[in-house]
Amino acid sequence: MPLDLAVLVFDLLGTFAFAISGALLAVQKGFDVVGSLLLASLTGLGGGVIRDLLLDQGVPNAFAEPLYLVPVVLAVLIVLVGLVHEGRLHRTLLVFDALGLATFCVMGATIAHTAGLNPVAAVLLGVTTAVGGGAMRDVVANRVPQIVDPDGVYATPTFLGAGLAVLLLELELFGAPAAVAVALLVFAARLLAVVRGWRLPLASMR
Amino acid sequence: MPLDLAVLVFDLLGTFAFAISGALLAVQKGFDVVGSLLLASLTGLGGGVIRDLLLDQGVPNAFAEPLYLVPVVLAVLIVLVGLVHEGRLHRTLLVFDALGLATFCVMGATIAHTAGLNPVAAVLLGVTTAVGGGAMRDVVANRVPQIVDPDGVYATPTFLGAGLAVLLLELELFGAPAAVAVALLVFAARLLAVVRGWRLPLASMR
Amino acid sequence: MPLDLAVLVFDLLGTFAFAISGALLAVQKGFDVVGSLLLASLTGLGGGVIRDLLLDQGVPNAFAEPLYLVPVVLAVLIVLVGLVHEGRLHRTLLVFDALGLATFCVMGATIAHTAGLNPVAAVLLGVTTAVGGGAMRDVVANRVPQIVDPDGVYATPTFLGAGLAVLLLELELFGAPAAVAVALLVFAARLLAVVRGWRLPLASMR
Repeated sequence: MPLDLAVLVFDLLGTFAFAISGALLAVQKGFDVVGSLLLASLTGLGGGVIRDLLLDQGVPNAFAEPLYLVPVVLAVLIVLVGLVHEGRLHRTLLVFDALGLATFCVMGATIAHTAGLNPVAAVLLGVTTAVGGGAMRDVVANRVPQIVDPDGVYATPTFLGAGLAVLLLELELFGAPAAVAVALLVFAARLLAVVRGWRLPLASMR
Repeated sequence: MPLDLAVLVFDLLGTFAFAISGALLAVQKGFDVVGSLLLASLTGLGGGVIRDLLLDQGVPNAFAEPLYLVPVVLAVLIVLVGLVHEGRLHRTLLVFDALGLATFCVMGATIAHTAGLNPVAAVLLGVTTAVGGGAMRDVVANRVPQIVDPDGVYATPTFLGAGLAVLLLELELFGAPAAVAVALLVFAARLLAVVRGWRLPLASMR
Repeated sequence: MPLDLAVLVFDLLGTFAFAISGALLAVQKGFDVVGSLLLASLTGLGGGVIRDLLLDQGVPNAFAEPLYLVPVVLAVLIVLVGLVHEGRLHRTLLVFDALGLATFCVMGATIAHTAGLNPVAAVLLGVTTAVGGGAMRDVVANRVPQIVDPDGVYATPTFLGAGLAVLLLELELFGAPAAVAVALLVFAARLLAVVRGWRLPLASMR
């Protein structure tokens, strides 16, 4: 699979996963179906739109390519009819959010690196792409964003994922298989952090 | 009236209407006059700034053209001296917000279409322009944005308005009279939704 | 000191001050160290990123120049080990926030003016740069932004600072000494407003 196509497939998959998380939160909050569509769009497309705005290369993909609406609408429908729903352990949203994080940190870093940014900037853009949509979802739904919630290691795996992706890109070892492997690693790290209750040190040692 | 001038007049009118809604919310929240000016600016200019950022065509109009400050300052003054104030039914804010929605969905779609975006993207940009400023107003004032509040059909009329505007543009039937007609339709639909208590299906059928 | 270098030094200083305020808020909210890093980045770099997005001149400095990460990481570490901490009067955060406001309103206006914007737009961009990062900090930490909090004159000194900077630029009297003087004036005005409990008129006279 050529890298262009792989990037597109990955980006659509991440969009779908984040859109599911947005639609699930819409159900929790009692939103109607259009509110769900807007929250799913913001979550699924938001990170990529921020990435494209920062790269300053014309109209963001999410607006220029109607194809990006397909995973969003699909996610809203799937949640609407109840094919995916929040379980008793409240972890369905977390799993889809983790899948979005995993794909978007790799994709954001790859797209930024391909656009010619320096490695550090590419890592930062990968992290921003990964956490941006979820942060806007949480702000609009009026809850403290998971990025700053100490109950769980959230952004750290995306630093690892974006860092690894950029390292492999610099070493010219990157391709679709490497992207999948790094994304799976991030996904596993995020889920393990939730299941095992991993914590990081607090912001103050006092 | 040439389309350029009509676009400007419409854009200033929508800015004024949204700025009034921001200034009214500032009064409700007990903000001071500079807080009111900032909230009115964010609401009145926010949607257009997001639109211009997404279109990636230089400095957004709201910053490049000092003329856009006139409706914002006017709105703050009008609310300050009490010429427009929130009534017992709490609907003054809703009416001005509806007027902003109606003008901005048509203008956003028109400007995006004129900038060469495909029809689907133009509709999305129209909706984003219409709901963006109000969403930022509500987030900054720390309440759940109306876009996701199930108590009332909010974003749906803007999809209709932006869709109709793009359809008429594609058919080359668009002009100032059509823009006014579509905006009035959106305005009426939004107000009817509030008055009649229209609801959409919830985000989950379970 | 040439103006380019002065701009960079000022920008890094403002970033550091705002990042300290973000890291202090992270401690108050009980965030972990990565949450603190994200909130410090958002606060320290957010205003400049918004400024650069609005100026539409390529990738924002905060992403393109890894140097901007130094003050952010430094701020998080300093707060982590407790070298700077919130006092009993809860004013440490306010002081660093005021320092950020003071430097960023001058820098934002200067950069916008140098980029060729008209004087009014340059003032607005200065204010936006100054209040943008703090507003995002407060929204993400789920509190009403200080920009609209009536308990204290917050944005007004940045209008004065940006206005003075643009006036001096227009008169060709601007340089590093003038920038320092204007920033000190804004800093003093903001702190006096807090200490003296200055208030502005409310948004409604009714």
